Amino acid sequence: MAKVKKQPKPKALPPKGFRDYFGAEVTDRAHMLEQIAGVYHRYGFDALESSAVETVEALGKFLPDVDRPNEGVFAWQEDEDANWLALRYDLTAPLARVYAQHRNDLPTPYRRYAMGPVWRNEKPGPGRYRQFYQCDADTVGTASMAADAEICALLSDTLEAVGIPRGDYIVRVNNRKVLNGVMEVAGLAGDDKTSERGIVLRAIDKLDRLGVEGVRALLGAGREDASGDFTKGAGLDDAAADVVMGFMDAKRSTGRETTARLRELVAGSEVGLQGVDELETIADLLEAGGYGADRIELDPAVVRGLGYYTGPVFEAELTFEILDEKGRPRQFGSVAGGGRYDDLVKRFTGQEVPAVGVSIGVDRLLAALREKGRMTATHAGPVVVTVMDRDRLADYQSMVTELRNAGIRAEMFMGNPKNFGNQLKYADKRASPCAVIQGSDEADNGIVQIKDLILGAKLAENATLDEWRDRPQQFEVPRDQLVAKVREIIESYS
Amino acid sequence: MAKVKKQPKPKALPPKGFRDYFGAEVTDRAHMLEQIAGVYHRYGFDALESSAVETVEALGKFLPDVDRPNEGVFAWQEDEDANWLALRYDLTAPLARVYAQHRNDLPTPYRRYAMGPVWRNEKPGPGRYRQFYQCDADTVGTASMAADAEICALLSDTLEAVGIPRGDYIVRVNNRKVLNGVMEVAGLAGDDKTSERGIVLRAIDKLDRLGVEGVRALLGAGREDASGDFTKGAGLDDAAADVVMGFMDAKRSTGRETTARLRELVAGSEVGLQGVDELETIADLLEAGGYGADRIELDPAVVRGLGYYTGPVFEAELTFEILDEKGRPRQFGSVAGGGRYDDLVKRFTGQEVPAVGVSIGVDRLLAALREKGRMTATHAGPVVVTVMDRDRLADYQSMVTELRNAGIRAEMFMGNPKNFGNQLKYADKRASPCAVIQGSDEADNGIVQIKDLILGAKLAENATLDEWRDRPQQFEVPRDQLVAKVREIIESYS
Repeated sequence: MAKVKKQPKPKALPPKGFRDYFGAEVTDRAHMLEQIAGVYHRYGFDALESSAVETVEALGKFLPDVDRPNEGVFAWQEDEDANWLALRYDLTAPLARVYAQHRNDLPTPYRRYAMGPVWRNEKPGPGRYRQFYQCDADTVGTASMAADAEICALLSDTLEAVGIPRGDYIVRVNNRKVLNGVMEVAGLAGDDKTSERGIVLRAIDKLDRLGVEGVRALLGAGREDASGDFTKGAGLDDAAADVVMGFMDAKRSTGRETTARLRELVAGSEVGLQGVDELETIADLLEAGGYGADRIELDPAVVRGLGYYTGPVFEAELTFEILDEKGRPRQFGSVAGGGRYDDLVKRFTGQEVPAVGVSIGVDRLLAALREKGRMTATHAGPVVVTVMDRDRLADYQSMVTELRNAGIRAEMFMGNPKNFGNQLKYADKRASPCAVIQGSDEADNGIVQIKDLILGAKLAENATLDEWRDRPQQFEVPRDQLVAKVREIIESYS
Repeated sequence: MAKVKKQPKPKALPPKGFRDYFGAEVTDRAHMLEQIAGVYHRYGFDALESSAVETVEALGKFLPDVDRPNEGVFAWQEDEDANWLALRYDLTAPLARVYAQHRNDLPTPYRRYAMGPVWRNEKPGPGRYRQFYQCDADTVGTASMAADAEICALLSDTLEAVGIPRGDYIVRVNNRKVLNGVMEVAGLAGDDKTSERGIVLRAIDKLDRLGVEGVRALLGAGREDASGDFTKGAGLDDAAADVVMGFMDAKRSTGRETTARLRELVAGSEVGLQGVDELETIADLLEAGGYGADRIELDPAVVRGLGYYTGPVFEAELTFEILDEKGRPRQFGSVAGGGRYDDLVKRFTGQEVPAVGVSIGVDRLLAALREKGRMTATHAGPVVVTVMDRDRLADYQSMVTELRNAGIRAEMFMGNPKNFGNQLKYADKRASPCAVIQGSDEADNGIVQIKDLILGAKLAENATLDEWRDRPQQFEVPRDQLVAKVREIIESYS
């Protein structure tokens, strides 16, 4: 054949910001998605898998919580007619499109769940990829606060179902309408105050980073950062700034005390009082369901997403500590967030459709479980049937088939069989529980050798352990007891 | 708020050639993928999920079985440096990239499975979408025919695991090398015969469509189609054409007779005889594993993919008949295909890496099971707790929570509760097994009404059925027996 020398070899790398997942990384996630789907299903949510590709027009121009044009998505021009397609950046925008398209056939309200990858055309960073999984549940078509309360309960049950025990997480609930009321009371209600409201929203969104003093400065005249750069503030007077700061600090020891405090803060604002009423309804329904403050609490300090959502907002945080890169303890933090967004379907139909939902960050949740050592599923490798005689592949193959038919994960060694040591190294690399060996002598005598590969590792760990010491590392069994003996070994370690 | 009137409403449609999947369509597929992964895992294959996006350079310029430039993929320019990214069009090209990248860390051979969507930028047609699922198993890094035999056995076991009974499918095996031998015997061996070999390959690939006479014409002088268009032939003389036709017709009643016939046809060709030896090795190994001709057979008439693969080729066909759009019976046809491809990793590393694999068309397999009525999983809707008193949402919510905590799929009605008929219509639309009703009278008396919604449907189907006739459609139970009674109803129908 003619040699092709023109093209340089392609680089064997995924695009920047993308990665591959191997073995247990894939199966652990699949298992978690199954567990989550189980809870979602029990709650009456139906599965939806929309296409990964949407028209840019249907997706809309903005990412959910960032004021960013569609440079945040991967998009390309479909054809000369200038139709643009893009990869979905979340599962909510596609839901709005699907609901608008099929609204006459779907039940009202429509409870749906979706799980799958989304793509963001953003600068990748450490642990920050441009493709990641989301796992969403949304209820479209009802303004009832019962739907919001249900999403909170669902979130709590889901976290426990995947292995986060009660006490290690908290679902926190806030309401955008209460903040709107606060804005009103602070004198930032009118159309001419859009820019000031924006400054306030961005300021409280930075509470974690800037602290109380920093936010306070941004509510007033402005803030100079360490580098000397000055950020203009919202220009609130002290009394008005007090109301905003009071909002973020309004959490009391019970939900009822918290709503009482909020009611004081938004006194006189209709939308603010409506927001407090909504929080009370949610709290009552959750109490009726037995979801106490150890699982779900009202917390006006939840500020994430307040700019995006139109009513209640939720966030699930894992409250246990982990060590960061520098060995310092810190809380694991947020693994899920959501809220009410009543405008998303309107883009398509002109009619406002109330909706509420939550998105769980599956990869973060998996990382949390690994961090806590709660990823206990054993990922046992296959039994490896070694090849002593190249001419007797069929014999080895039938051993493998017998093992597989008995439900035991097994394979025949298929590398170069010349060096037997390499076969055992391969078995080690595969985390095999045992290797099966049969030379011609053993074949003539109707026996096989079984080499216990876990025992070696156990003995290396603790050589004095009585329960292992007298156990043989390699022994022979009659050929027809192969399956039974292998099963015995596997079960003795599980 | 200022009204935005500038932009027209976006169309609520997915891009052309894409579709959404709802409810059971999603969960049935997830269930099938789980079953398939179970078999793949038992065979020692490890999961791999590569990124959906690759560099165009890594994907290569050609689709697997079509001589087509990269117009067949969805691609876009990443940045000004002219890096192009693309959605994967199959799971094999990414595997080659991943293997080349990680070859020093992966076991040799590397058995991996992958399942997920792939994207083709092709003209959509009825039932032909631009995003669809593939489900692949490949063994990379061994030239042993044991790997090929294993893939055939895996394919057979997988089809049975998902519910295709033995007898309703056949895995057919052929070998590209035997065809190469046939070409050699027919005088089409040299570099100067590339074009003629191409004509022969395309001709036999069209056997289904053109029939024996049509293919025969294309092997000789050429063929004039019904419209009068003339396609130039390969120019073989009768004896040479006989060899090619004989190859496609070489299937005999046993594998051994078939290889004997092939051996005659390729006599004198080294590569041809090697191909026949390979088929014999595969047949021997499968026999040792107990895979008889009722599951896997040698069949030189398998021509699909012969142009792409370099050694053995496999195809799984479902052999039962279905009715086509016009009501005519036809065989369901191919649901999986694969073979040996030894050149794919070489693009990256310069070294030839032998590999063999299979790809299962999950969506076609699902369609086949539906066609045969073998999709028996019940997709029961949730119990619907209706809302009689708006003020007592918390009571209804606690009923729902009790049912859910007992593992029963349940939800509270969240539409407008005014019209009770609408609540029952909703429950019907949701395929609810029963509705729970509690007005203030019932609440005062500590009871709930349960309305059996399946019974109505059963009675409508067959009103004289004795077992249903005396059963009440609606009855009351003490509040504290709600969960037990609902469970009773659900279990009585399952």
